Amino acid sequence: MQALKEKILAEGRVFEGDVLKVDSFLNHQIDVKFLGEIGKEFRRRFDGCEINKILTVEASGIGIACIVAQYFDVPVVFAKKSMSVNIAGDVYKAPVTSFTRKKQYEMVVSKSFLSPEDKVLILDDFLAEGSALLGLASLARSAGATIVGAGIVIEKAHQQGGRLIREQGIRVESLARIASMDHRTGKIEFVTD
Amino acid sequence: MQALKEKILAEGRVFEGDVLKVDSFLNHQIDVKFLGEIGKEFRRRFDGCEINKILTVEASGIGIACIVAQYFDVPVVFAKKSMSVNIAGDVYKAPVTSFTRKKQYEMVVSKSFLSPEDKVLILDDFLAEGSALLGLASLARSAGATIVGAGIVIEKAHQQGGRLIREQGIRVESLARIASMDHRTGKIEFVTD
Repeated sequence: MQALKEKILAEGRVFEGDVLKVDSFLNHQIDVKFLGEIGKEFRRRFDGCEINKILTVEASGIGIACIVAQYFDVPVVFAKKSMSVNIAGDVYKAPVTSFTRKKQYEMVVSKSFLSPEDKVLILDDFLAEGSALLGLASLARSAGATIVGAGIVIEKAHQQGGRLIREQGIRVESLARIASMDHRTGKIEFVTD
Repeated sequence: MQALKEKILAEGRVFEGDVLKVDSFLNHQIDVKFLGEIGKEFRRRFDGCEINKILTVEASGIGIACIVAQYFDVPVVFAKKSMSVNIAGDVYKAPVTSFTRKKQYEMVVSKSFLSPEDKVLILDDFLAEGSALLGLASLARSAGATIVGAGIVIEKAHQQGGRLIREQGIRVESLARIASMDHRTGKIEFVTD
């Protein structure tokens, strides 16, 4: 998605440790109008697919999922990263290691909101090592739901997540795929499609 | 907002400890189309107000803020609940005690995304003891931003948060105000406006 690549080049900043910050429009401040363009693009890519639910994980996936869901006319379910009194009863669980937070946690979703009838599009802002996405796929499978595909805003294609997910037979559509980043020069290169 | 009250009565469940679960449409599964109606209602209530940014806090505020922001044509900034490598540099901080999670944490927002030029509408799903909303107001004040008001989906009017915020001179618009709940009978009563 050309407009996204341009926005990453204009506003993204590369930090040591292979960290790309796009917090001006994607995961701290959110450019809601631009997310609308992202929604249209996912709709175009998954056109003709039967999807009745969008599945993501808190926190930064939620905004993207909600805006994109409008273009599919379906509800969002977001997995939570810890148990709170707001989740009652039976849950599906999956272990996750966060690349950015450098810690392990459990992702949970209430059994009330994922079922074998569901045809799920999984969405997230980033795909790097793939832990969150693998966790979401695991939750969907635990529920017996069909995984129609995964929509990713930014895939760090030099990390293993994309390969791991695609090896599971899951269709992954990433709107920008990063080939390399250099925090010393700030240079970001994309995979040429 | 009548449609919201009806949805709370139809789908909300009351649990011991003064907990109202609306996880079928607001904060676990998200009824995105219904959030659009909520967006229109906030737009109507804050009509004529100059607002250039919506401020909320992760996680369940984000979806609401993003959908509502479309009706104001402004970006969203969401405060984060812990430091991660995704937040660099200077931040504003405020302490928060979560009613549902029964723990204390710090809420942070990057200084890059809140400034004295900002005219902020604060949004959140619930207002109970008011800790999150007071924290968000504190962040906005730290940045020198103008707080235009606070939009709340569900205010538990029998708790002190609404009073504390209004005593600070902040205009609060709550779309449903709960007067009482009883987990034994499941009965929910609203404040009659």
